[in-house]
Amino acid sequence: MIFTSDNASPVHPQVLEALHGANQGFAMPYGADPLMDRVRARLREIFEAPEAAVYLVATGTTANALSLACLAAPWQTIYCHRDSHIQMDECGAPEFYTGGAKLVLLDGADAKVSPEALRAAVESTHQGFVHAVQRGAVSITNATEAGAVYGPDEVAAISAVAREYGLPVHMDGARFANALVSTGASPAEMTWKAGVDVLSFGGTKNGLMGVEAVVLFDPARAWEFELRRKRAGHLFSKHRYLSAQMAAYLEGDLWLDMARAANRAAARLSEGLLSVPGTALVHPREANAVFAGWPRAGHRRAQEAGAAYYFWPDMNATLDGPDDEILSARLVCSWCTTDAEIDRFVQLVRA
Amino acid sequence: MIFTSDNASPVHPQVLEALHGANQGFAMPYGADPLMDRVRARLREIFEAPEAAVYLVATGTTANALSLACLAAPWQTIYCHRDSHIQMDECGAPEFYTGGAKLVLLDGADAKVSPEALRAAVESTHQGFVHAVQRGAVSITNATEAGAVYGPDEVAAISAVAREYGLPVHMDGARFANALVSTGASPAEMTWKAGVDVLSFGGTKNGLMGVEAVVLFDPARAWEFELRRKRAGHLFSKHRYLSAQMAAYLEGDLWLDMARAANRAAARLSEGLLSVPGTALVHPREANAVFAGWPRAGHRRAQEAGAAYYFWPDMNATLDGPDDEILSARLVCSWCTTDAEIDRFVQLVRA
Amino acid sequence: MIFTSDNASPVHPQVLEALHGANQGFAMPYGADPLMDRVRARLREIFEAPEAAVYLVATGTTANALSLACLAAPWQTIYCHRDSHIQMDECGAPEFYTGGAKLVLLDGADAKVSPEALRAAVESTHQGFVHAVQRGAVSITNATEAGAVYGPDEVAAISAVAREYGLPVHMDGARFANALVSTGASPAEMTWKAGVDVLSFGGTKNGLMGVEAVVLFDPARAWEFELRRKRAGHLFSKHRYLSAQMAAYLEGDLWLDMARAANRAAARLSEGLLSVPGTALVHPREANAVFAGWPRAGHRRAQEAGAAYYFWPDMNATLDGPDDEILSARLVCSWCTTDAEIDRFVQLVRA
Amino acid sequence: MIFTSDNASPVHPQVLEALHGANQGFAMPYGADPLMDRVRARLREIFEAPEAAVYLVATGTTANALSLACLAAPWQTIYCHRDSHIQMDECGAPEFYTGGAKLVLLDGADAKVSPEALRAAVESTHQGFVHAVQRGAVSITNATEAGAVYGPDEVAAISAVAREYGLPVHMDGARFANALVSTGASPAEMTWKAGVDVLSFGGTKNGLMGVEAVVLFDPARAWEFELRRKRAGHLFSKHRYLSAQMAAYLEGDLWLDMARAANRAAARLSEGLLSVPGTALVHPREANAVFAGWPRAGHRRAQEAGAAYYFWPDMNATLDGPDDEILSARLVCSWCTTDAEIDRFVQLVRA
Repeated sequence: MIFTSDNASPVHPQVLEALHGANQGFAMPYGADPLMDRVRARLREIFEAPEAAVYLVATGTTANALSLACLAAPWQTIYCHRDSHIQMDECGAPEFYTGGAKLVLLDGADAKVSPEALRAAVESTHQGFVHAVQRGAVSITNATEAGAVYGPDEVAAISAVAREYGLPVHMDGARFANALVSTGASPAEMTWKAGVDVLSFGGTKNGLMGVEAVVLFDPARAWEFELRRKRAGHLFSKHRYLSAQMAAYLEGDLWLDMARAANRAAARLSEGLLSVPGTALVHPREANAVFAGWPRAGHRRAQEAGAAYYFWPDMNATLDGPDDEILSARLVCSWCTTDAEIDRFVQLVRA
Repeated sequence: MIFTSDNASPVHPQVLEALHGANQGFAMPYGADPLMDRVRARLREIFEAPEAAVYLVATGTTANALSLACLAAPWQTIYCHRDSHIQMDECGAPEFYTGGAKLVLLDGADAKVSPEALRAAVESTHQGFVHAVQRGAVSITNATEAGAVYGPDEVAAISAVAREYGLPVHMDGARFANALVSTGASPAEMTWKAGVDVLSFGGTKNGLMGVEAVVLFDPARAWEFELRRKRAGHLFSKHRYLSAQMAAYLEGDLWLDMARAANRAAARLSEGLLSVPGTALVHPREANAVFAGWPRAGHRRAQEAGAAYYFWPDMNATLDGPDDEILSARLVCSWCTTDAEIDRFVQLVRA
Repeated sequence: MIFTSDNASPVHPQVLEALHGANQGFAMPYGADPLMDRVRARLREIFEAPEAAVYLVATGTTANALSLACLAAPWQTIYCHRDSHIQMDECGAPEFYTGGAKLVLLDGADAKVSPEALRAAVESTHQGFVHAVQRGAVSITNATEAGAVYGPDEVAAISAVAREYGLPVHMDGARFANALVSTGASPAEMTWKAGVDVLSFGGTKNGLMGVEAVVLFDPARAWEFELRRKRAGHLFSKHRYLSAQMAAYLEGDLWLDMARAANRAAARLSEGLLSVPGTALVHPREANAVFAGWPRAGHRRAQEAGAAYYFWPDMNATLDGPDDEILSARLVCSWCTTDAEIDRFVQLVRA
Repeated sequence: MIFTSDNASPVHPQVLEALHGANQGFAMPYGADPLMDRVRARLREIFEAPEAAVYLVATGTTANALSLACLAAPWQTIYCHRDSHIQMDECGAPEFYTGGAKLVLLDGADAKVSPEALRAAVESTHQGFVHAVQRGAVSITNATEAGAVYGPDEVAAISAVAREYGLPVHMDGARFANALVSTGASPAEMTWKAGVDVLSFGGTKNGLMGVEAVVLFDPARAWEFELRRKRAGHLFSKHRYLSAQMAAYLEGDLWLDMARAANRAAARLSEGLLSVPGTALVHPREANAVFAGWPRAGHRRAQEAGAAYYFWPDMNATLDGPDDEILSARLVCSWCTTDAEIDRFVQLVRA
């Protein structure tokens, strides 16, 4: 009953197996390994993007920050949601990597940016006025930090605004697979066909050890990306072990299978909780996370039985207090969350 | 016969095995895993430094750049050898992480900094003169980029100069284990007892997949280090897989065993080559690399038989040209270089 | 009838005269001129702060950005008002100088930060949580961008919150003199006695050519400030001409006289406008700026007669449209605004 | 007898006069003043460069650092002389403004870069090798820090190497006027016709209070320059006072007259010194500085009579020691150095 985060989950056995496969003798370092060729080809195929530049890094923060550094100048803005990972959970990595770009924070339900909010923010940036930072890049997260999912049409609507002002679009896809299987869209439909320029393609939260791909649909800034990656210490010498993980992830659509399992678990958890009187969702359940509130007594039963998760958004809420006060929580499922633990958890909440 | 770099070598089986051990169920992310507690305790024990702050990162460039950012302000110098990794092979990572500190390049045989060269450079920095960058940190590499090794006394002599001017000392120990077994010094003797403040403790080149420790003997800047690491995207969510590698590395002194094997292989290679008439060493062989020159004909035979390595320092040298011209090369051995491939290689060079 | 900004006003004749006085023969450069000694002594006297470190720079943006760089680390926050100059009008200078600190934007009437808003923002910063930027510095502007003034008690209330959390306080005093004469407080009461650590002490908007002082009440970071200033290109070789301006400014309280004149002009303008039916203030008139709204027809008459000012906050408002629509504007008075032009302007608005 | 630096000299009376002229009523701020239009037109005329973008800043360090930030990416090199101002006297401003570019230091007599030294350095930069910083910009100083002057042919020879590798060329012209009158070349011949892309056009050392122009012969990066300038705090609100100085400087070729006077003074000083037995030049006298050595007894006589200058290159040399030891010094003349003080100085050195 560990629902703290999908990053607390283990690695899929096929992925570990692939590391053994990669561990044969010598290999060229720094991404010149043959496995990386396979990864590149496979991602281009999956995304129907034969020209795309593809790179691997080890953390999601890195994927985001390097991408944004290629898209926004130091004196420009990055438009993002107020609750986005790049604003809340990266200790200023976008500022560090861009050389001081300014994040402009947008409101929106379920941590989703709306085209209207984006347009208003872009319009209120004093473009051409030397005293103000200038318009830079747009960054959205799919699935969002509130567990919601943008469909391709929603992405396209945001990109349309960005395009109107000539701004590039970045998608933080730390949970891209979860968003994809939630909507049924193809990778291409969800990204470049909907106007996304650069994608952080997550793996770590979905069964890998620590690998994310960055996909630059327009390869024009590929060399800049490579130099920025090296300069930041994110180019791995024994790169084959990143390649091997990503190759296994993409093999036979394991990545989609794992995301489906995680989403399915969250759906079961959500339905289970909603069957408990007094429980309500705080955000719609669309991917692999459930945001729900129920009385403190239920939290107490669950946690005393070993369930782990965060109170959310008030991370400082405690078990001390009136039994019937509603406390809300974030529950994240992963590729290996079992029905049994979900059912037991629901039962604990119930009584 | 792959002598291109120790980073082309595979991972030790016990290390891979440890990943399986770590892959059981859920674990707290971001370094809060129990394995990291073990790593921290073990490194403190190995270094006889119970107060030291210990962190893991995935690449050597990161270990160096984060360390230096904690030691040198943007308007300060970093004194280092002209051929050091931080100057030559990190695409400006020290400048990026420090916010623009200036590397002051020192000459010295075998890529070693001498106390005299350091003193001269420190003296010629216009300390207290607002127009000039100010004295910052000293960084040395052990074993050096030329395969040489500082003994503890040599380190202490350098640190003594640094101390005289109040400057902290960083050691790039990407091949620390190789230096250690070469000298017989203890980890403590080679570092804090000899005046080293921060150590990049290498693992990747010596049998790991991609893990380096940073050891701050004075923990005063530990929290700053943690924030800089996160901000740079180098804090791993599934940190247990870094911990597991490092734990296996330290277990039963596997790290020293691997370094011994690599050094022994280099010694055998060096002796073998020196037994070939017309071959000479360019640098003394002290750790796991051999820098030697021999006639082009020998290179041709070796490379045509599949040997791989870099011409050095002239990486652009080619097999085309007079048979008897001496070309020098860098040959790096690793924990798994075999006697058989060494002997075959020497034979090819010989005739 | 130029009310666009106080920075469009000329330099006081005594200040120009002082440049002649300074132009005699040779002088030591870079702040070692005797006039700077006088300025330093005088500012220490004025602020009753014999230990304060005092520096001159040429622009307000520089004074602010250098000050903040000494107070906030790259991974920290700067708490400031959403409408503050550092957020809106410096093209990201605080981010550039600090190495990427994050401005946290506070709401509040009349561009004033309230202690409550500050406390809420500080509390919601995840101090000690490595994924989030950490608490840094507080910056307030006096007089504010909306022409309002903090009294010493209000400053002290903000500083009290900052102190509670161990945060330093910066005051952007581009219009410090205007704030001072508005409240009758002494320089010390308005600053260090009320908990201000570093002051940007404006001169340019109040009769100088281009000089601001930075006053660090705690001189501990003085040398860092000097290095940052030089490194940013803001240390003047012919510094005596900055010193001379500032010396003339402080001589016989010319600075306060000019501020009084500007405030008085704004008061007259405000009263005049309020005597016109249909005119209302948007912000209270407390210093040298008037924010007021009146029907478009009045704007048309004024502007066609040569009056210059900005529509505010909607800088894109135009004279085209219904006569009776209320449009609001910012009108800034300076040390040399005359009663005649004010009276004429009011008359134009009126009919 | 003040020969410490030309920046210790006063401002030309016509320049001060121009400030009065500019001080009439209100003026548009931030470079929108009509005087700036005149300056821009005049500099374009002088340089025969009708498309050039022209900006004013207040210090030479700023002119250089902003220029270089437009020419070199953070992961690139700046090739410059080991003794150049950007390396020795700007406290790391190029690193700060570029975001950490690496200065590659070239040797060469009289602080001049030779095409050969440049080529060797460019060739040894590992272009296309992701581990190394990449080729960026070339920066030369004219007149140099050793008082030498590049003729247009010499500049062209350096630019030819730069062009061959696609690198832009910056000229630090803090003493551009002195170089120009020394060679008789036209401004265009010395700059864009010889391959210079961006010029720091000095004024401060040659009779202004604190104004330098930056001339971008290719205006493509003009807007970037403007944003960088503002972001760094170097855009002046009361810009007219910079414009006025520069307009007066260019009026009737006052700038060339002042440079001629300074060069002539240096020539007289040089000749005078050389007439003293035991005196020799350390660098050829080509502009307004004299680098010469003579016995300590002569220094003693001069300094005791009030002469001021720096020992050079050993700034720590002292008057204590044997009478006949040769000590060398830097003597800088300015637009207002008089024959009388030169002659008196020579006499003191002589006996």
